Formats: sequence, structure tokens, C-alpha cells
Amino acid sequence: MFWYRNLIKLSTSTKSKIPITKNLLQASLSHFSTANQPPAWAQAQPSGLGPTKPHDKPRVVVLGSGWAGCRLMKGLDPKLYDIVCVSPRNHMVFTPLLASTCVGTLEFRSVAEPIARIQPSISSAPGSYFFLANSTAVDTENHEVHCETVTDGTDTLDPWKLKISYDKLVIASGAQASTFGIHGVKEHAIFLREVHHAQEIRRKLLLNLMLSDVPGLPEEEKRRLLHCVVVGGGPTGVEFSGELSDFIRRDVHERYTHVKDYIHVTLIEANEILSSFDDRLRRYAIKHLTKSGVRLVRGIVKDVKPENLVLTDGSEVPYGLLVWSTGVGPSPFVNSLGLPKSPGGRIGVDEWLRVPTVQDVFSIGDCSGFLESTGKPVLPALAQVAERQGKYLANLLNKICKDGGGHANGAKDMNLGDPFEYKHLGSMATVGRFKALVDLRQSKEAKGISLAGFVSWFIWRSAYLTRVVSWRNRFYVAINWLTTFVFGRDISRI
Amino acid sequence: MFWYRNLIKLSTSTKSKIPITKNLLQASLSHFSTANQPPAWAQAQPSGLGPTKPHDKPRVVVLGSGWAGCRLMKGLDPKLYDIVCVSPRNHMVFTPLLASTCVGTLEFRSVAEPIARIQPSISSAPGSYFFLANSTAVDTENHEVHCETVTDGTDTLDPWKLKISYDKLVIASGAQASTFGIHGVKEHAIFLREVHHAQEIRRKLLLNLMLSDVPGLPEEEKRRLLHCVVVGGGPTGVEFSGELSDFIRRDVHERYTHVKDYIHVTLIEANEILSSFDDRLRRYAIKHLTKSGVRLVRGIVKDVKPENLVLTDGSEVPYGLLVWSTGVGPSPFVNSLGLPKSPGGRIGVDEWLRVPTVQDVFSIGDCSGFLESTGKPVLPALAQVAERQGKYLANLLNKICKDGGGHANGAKDMNLGDPFEYKHLGSMATVGRFKALVDLRQSKEAKGISLAGFVSWFIWRSAYLTRVVSWRNRFYVAINWLTTFVFGRDISRI
Repeated sequence: MFWYRNLIKLSTSTKSKIPITKNLLQASLSHFSTANQPPAWAQAQPSGLGPTKPHDKPRVVVLGSGWAGCRLMKGLDPKLYDIVCVSPRNHMVFTPLLASTCVGTLEFRSVAEPIARIQPSISSAPGSYFFLANSTAVDTENHEVHCETVTDGTDTLDPWKLKISYDKLVIASGAQASTFGIHGVKEHAIFLREVHHAQEIRRKLLLNLMLSDVPGLPEEEKRRLLHCVVVGGGPTGVEFSGELSDFIRRDVHERYTHVKDYIHVTLIEANEILSSFDDRLRRYAIKHLTKSGVRLVRGIVKDVKPENLVLTDGSEVPYGLLVWSTGVGPSPFVNSLGLPKSPGGRIGVDEWLRVPTVQDVFSIGDCSGFLESTGKPVLPALAQVAERQGKYLANLLNKICKDGGGHANGAKDMNLGDPFEYKHLGSMATVGRFKALVDLRQSKEAKGISLAGFVSWFIWRSAYLTRVVSWRNRFYVAINWLTTFVFGRDISRI
Repeated sequence: MFWYRNLIKLSTSTKSKIPITKNLLQASLSHFSTANQPPAWAQAQPSGLGPTKPHDKPRVVVLGSGWAGCRLMKGLDPKLYDIVCVSPRNHMVFTPLLASTCVGTLEFRSVAEPIARIQPSISSAPGSYFFLANSTAVDTENHEVHCETVTDGTDTLDPWKLKISYDKLVIASGAQASTFGIHGVKEHAIFLREVHHAQEIRRKLLLNLMLSDVPGLPEEEKRRLLHCVVVGGGPTGVEFSGELSDFIRRDVHERYTHVKDYIHVTLIEANEILSSFDDRLRRYAIKHLTKSGVRLVRGIVKDVKPENLVLTDGSEVPYGLLVWSTGVGPSPFVNSLGLPKSPGGRIGVDEWLRVPTVQDVFSIGDCSGFLESTGKPVLPALAQVAERQGKYLANLLNKICKDGGGHANGAKDMNLGDPFEYKHLGSMATVGRFKALVDLRQSKEAKGISLAGFVSWFIWRSAYLTRVVSWRNRFYVAINWLTTFVFGRDISRI
């Protein structure tokens, strides 16, 4: 207990006459043990939360903090349920604007929304928690989730295991970027799904811009370093290409004048870009991207090496930056679950988003899909779908609790009311400066409004600005857009 | 050349009728070689910049992008000189506000100023460059600097070597955090000098806050995780402690209610905190910090272990976050230079900030100090000193060039005019919410104004706001302060 003695010599220089209250010291004294042995608790029983008692509030455990999980938590009534969220990140990412952060149009912080802002009770209600952890297994027999804490980057912590009992479980853990088993993608390409991906893209892009400025560097190496290749022509790939070409045309030409003629963007797609959009809009996008200097290439990637990728026809494409956005597939966690699956390997759910073979398990978002037996198609992996499901399920769970079925096994034969129905509201994508596509038709075949150009771009910006979750971030997104317009993009590599 | 063939199948889906111009294709064709062998240029002669010719503009090479180097570059006349900057970061850090970014009061981007914004010619004038590189040696005989490019985090690049000839060389590479040879500091403590340090502190603090929320964690482990220890009671350590206690009192109490009673801040200082300030101000700081819950401990650290540190009296202090800010000392690069040294091991300079033993080498900022022979004291490692030296030297170099001495060995017997005189303008430091110290005396003994409290805090904020380099960042700092005031600090861990 030597440590405490020191506190007595506290701060107070000999000259200063601030009295140290005894309370302060006593408070200090009770804080630490000097134990030096490895912590016993780490080897002991896993910690966590045991089953709720009948007179307690029932507990909803949500796995994941994406569009589905966050919309669900926002809608859950904390007076009815204790809410426990398990996710490796403590924020939701506003994915439609993520591409804009890579080149500095928006700040990273502006597209990240802390969960505690979405559902404040998670950090303040006595029985509600957020755990920075990965789920490893679900024990549906015992109504338990097994997790392991995240400790990335710290050398002083070993991950520890948790068991969390649930009354209702919502699996909203999302999907993972698909590589189609192509060799080298994981090692050399960067995905664009999380804020840290955007940070990595930004750092690499700025590094390559600066390295290519070194005199004596051969022309072809300069061109390689500054060749940005995007694989995948969906909205993410197209929006990123558009932002990148805009960054090049506006900011690189002004601030990296030595290398401005060497930087190029190539978008590789196996089929058609923006295949979910109207043909007229697609043609507009192709025309606009080509005009802004994006090279569109039809091809299939066969192999990815550190400095170039190989297409199936044998041609090699050197690159300095490779961004991979070819869609998503089931994550290893979802694959490992012994639950029924929908076509495509997602967790299979019924019309009420329940996993029908077990009690009290629901699944929403990119990790779930309707079972074949429902006769409904698996919905696309879109924020729109995930959000709608989260909202529906929040209402359903609130209703279940109000009807007395909140606790484990309490809703067995309950009438759940209307099943989940998805109505597509349309799609949007920007294709660069002041230009976007807006397709307000319910499906490719349906009739409806589809627009391209400045008005669409204005709709795109306004729509996303209103959809950003908090007023703080809405304010920041607007401020970011304004400063980018006035001062150009920020190029400091931090 | 298979790669080019693919471009012919370019983009254009069969349905779309956008014509592909031949020019676009030809432009594409010339861009890549399919060479797969290791690049020959990397093994060849080091690249770089050769000596300038007599009819060329002379070249000033600046090593470093801190307060000294950036203020110098800002003041250099790009019509007179080509400016080449060598630094491992492409931005200047507004260090007085860095402590505020750790807890989210300010965004990281708001305190980073791209060099290209400070001296635009560096990225646009034909002979001016910025190199993301570390200097490894200075060859004063041949007027050459040897450098190696920075390639952190990328697996596809080997660093390559550069030689840059200079007409005038300014060494402004700064100092490094001193550890006093204490074991474990580098491994377990975090310094607070760069933006990435602030990012690391923030990530660790938020991680610990979330981990300590896990039920089943023993009390003492919880207290350890949430014990933030700051070593060093200079302005940086005090400001960081103040920000942290403010973060705890305002944001943690609101958003992490489960753990709010476990988090504590301890500031360890061997002598007196804020030793350069007026006694009255120091007493005010001690009183205010203690009131805000910061424990001030007089002690000397002997050893740092992964989860606790040991003081010289043998007591152990467990910690979850350890921030080290005990001043600076010469960097290995400065130590390696065969140049005269000032007391304390800095590069020795004369009254005109020249290294007197060699031609055309100057040194400013934390890496330099007056030679004993000048009879002047080594100035403190302050932003204020560095900035004043940068400004003085920019004017001196501009004058030298106008007088015809810009080229190598051209200013041998030139009259340099007035020597550099430093006049201290005073010191400022915040000690938490709405409270700061302002000491406007030229030295500890001199008379003058010294203030503490809200008015000081207002002066502190206004002064720094006007000193932030660009209008963009000035705007952002103001906006950050406003949003922190309105919405609280952001807690997303990205």
C-alpha cells in the first residue's frame, strides 16, 4: 500500500497553501489493490448477464450496430425492455456517405453516429448495456449468447469471454464483403464498409500522391502508384469513383500540380454498372463518369498481386490503390450458426422476421433472408431494407411485451399481427460533382419517376441530410459540404 | 499488353450507346507497362534533386514541418527561392489544441494544417516540392541532404533513398519526447505530440470505458482500466488532465452512467506543476484541478509495466491509460549530426541562427539552441520561440537572396543585419471547463499582468482561435467548440 502514501505528498508545492482535504485522500485510498499476480477473475467463470427474473424487465439482446440493429434499438421502448447491444463498434456508420469521406468531402466523424445517441438508455438504464465484443455462438436451448470482448491494438488486455442470457435475441450482425475466393483480395484490396476502411483508403491515396512526387521515379512507377482501381460497379463503387474523379479534377489539379497528369481512375465490373437502375439512368452515369475521366472496364478479376491484378483474359492491371466493392455474403458467424438458412446462406426467417425453429430469436438486415417456405424473395442487402425491418421489429417486440410475452418462451402462441412487408422506395447514387441519379420506381419493371443530373444531385443531398440520424451530424455534414465547396477538400494525412 | 485489349470492351453495356472516343482509348494505352520483374530503378542510383545552376532560382531545403519550419516556409518568398520540404508528415499540428482532440472537444482535422495551404508554391511551383520522408544525414561538404521515404503501413512499397542538394539548408526537425531512459515508457505510455498520439489516447480511453462496463469484472480491474495517469505537469499534461476531468464530469457522467464512479485522473509530477507560471496562478491551477477531481501526486517514476507504474519510493500505481508528457530532448537524427552543439545537445547556432562551422546551414525550433560562445541562453522548447525564429529566418533568407547570396556559398562574408532577439510574450494554459491561466510577464521575475479564471479562459480561446493558421481550420475550431457546447463531446470510437 505504498502507493497511497504518495498521495499525501500530493501536488501542493511547498509554496502553495491549498489544503488537501482528508476526504479526497480517503477516496483515493480505497481505489487500488497492489496485486501483481495475473488476475484470477480472467481464468474464472465467464462473466456476463444471467437470466432475468419474472418480475424484472425482460431483456432484448441485439447483435450488431448497423442500420437494422440501430433502427431497432431506436424503436424499442426502454420502459418495456432492458436493451443489451453486442457489437465490435460503438457507433453506426451512415454508409451512403462513406465514399465521400475517403477523399475528404466529409469528415469521418460526420458519418459515425454513437449508439448512445441513438438509444440513450443503453448507457444509462441500470439493466441496459453496450458491449464492445464479437458474438461467437448462440445457445438457443439455454437462451444465451456467447461473446468475446474486442481489445484491438492494446497490449495489456486479453480478450475475455461473456455469456449473456436473453429473453429476445435479434441477430443483426450484417454480412461481410465477398471476395469470391479470389486470391490476394483480402491482403491487397481495401473494402469500403467501415470508417477504418475509408481512413485506410485516404491514407494510401495521399501517400501515393506524395511518393509519386519524388524526382527520379520512373514514369511507369508513377503511373502505377497513381492508378486507382475500383472493382465492382454497384452504387458504392460508382459513388467512390465519382468522388475520386471529382477530387482529382478539383483538388489534385490544384494542389498536386506536379503529378496531376498521372492520376487515373479505373472501374472494373463483370456485368453492368448500377444494374438495379433504369437503363436511361445507367447510360447517363456511364456518360458522366467517362466524361470525368473514369475508365470503365468490363472484366473479371482472377488474381490480385501486391502491385497489379490479373483479369480472366490474362491481362494485367497495375494499381497503386485497389478498392473492392463487389457486394456481400454471409459472415463466418452466420455460417457457424445451426439455424435454418434462406437461399444464399443467410439466416432464414418467417414473415414476422422470426427464426421459426427456435423460440425468441429474430434476425434482420443483411444477415437474414426469408425462408423458401414463405414464398417470398430474399431482399437485397440495402440500408433501406435493414432500416425498415428494424422499425417493424421494434414495434413487434414492443407489442409482444405489452401483451405479456416479453420474457423467454413467453410469446409461443401469440398472435403477432401483420407480417413484415417491404415496399421499395427507390434508389439514389451520385456520379460526381453536382450529378446524381434518382430512381423512384418500386422495381426495374415498374413505372415511376427517374431523374438524372443536378436536380437529382440536389435531391440526393437533401434526402441524405434529412436521413442522417442526429442533429449534430446533420449539422456537421452540412458544414462539411459547405467548407469543401468554399475551401476545397482537406489533404492533411493524419 | 493484354490489359489494353480489355479497355476496348470498355464499360458500355451492350444496351447503352455511348460512343467511346478513340482518344480516350489511346490515352489509356500509353499508361502501363506489364513489367513484372522487381523495379530496376529502386536498385539504381538514389533519386532526388541535383545542385541548382547559377541561373536557376536557389533552393532552400527545410527539414521538418512543425511551428518553426512552417512559419519559415510561409515567410519565404517563392519568387526568390525554390522551396523543398522534407518531413514525415504533410501537415503542421497546432499543438496547443492537441490535448482537446483526445476527448473529442475538437476534431483531429481541425488542428492539422496541410503544408500546401501554408505555402501553396510547395505543391505547384515547378522546382518546389514536399517529400514525405525522413532525413537520415546531412553532407555539408557537398551541400546535400540524404533522406528515405516514409511508407508506413503499406506492404507494397519499400522505402527508397533520396539525395537533395541545397543552397540553403534549414534544420527544423524538432525534438523528441524524453523518457529519461525509464524502462517501459516507450512500450506502454502514449506521448502527446502528434495527431496519431491523440487518436491512440482517444481509442484507448473509449475502449477502457466500454470494457469496464462488462458485468462480472472485478471492482479493482474496473478501477485500473478507468485510472488515467498523466506523467508530467507542464502545460500539456495540465491541459490534458483538465480536458479529461471535464470530459468525465460532463460526458462520462451522462453517457457512461454505469461506470462514472470508477473513472479517475491522476497527474504525477516530480517537481511543481506549471513551473513557468506565476505562483498565484499555479495555486489557482492546483485548486481548480483538485476541485475537478484530478489527483495531483508528487513523485518520480522508476519503471513502467503493462498495467502499473512504479515510483521511486516503491509504490505501484495501476493504470488503464498512461500519457507521458515530461518534456523533450534531442532526436537521434540531431544526435547523429557532426555539427557543434549547444548546452543540452541541441544543434548549436549563432545569433543569426546559422550553424557557424559550415556554410549555408541554419537551425531553428526545438532542435536548435544558441552556442555557449554567443553568451545567450538556450531558449525553451516552445511554439512561440519556434514561430518567431521561423519568421526571422524567412526574412533573413529573403534578404540574403535579394543581396545576391542565395546560391550555395554565396553569403560567405555578407552583412546579415540584426541578430535574432527573443521577447517572451507570456504563457497560457487551460485547467478545465471555462478556466484558464494567462501570464503576460516576460519572465518569472518580471512584473506584468497575470490572470486566472473565466476571463483568462476567454482570452485563451480567442487567442488560439486567431492563431490557427487557415480560415478553414479557424472556422472548424469555432464550430467544434460550439457543437461540443451544445451537443456534448462525440464518443464514437472510429
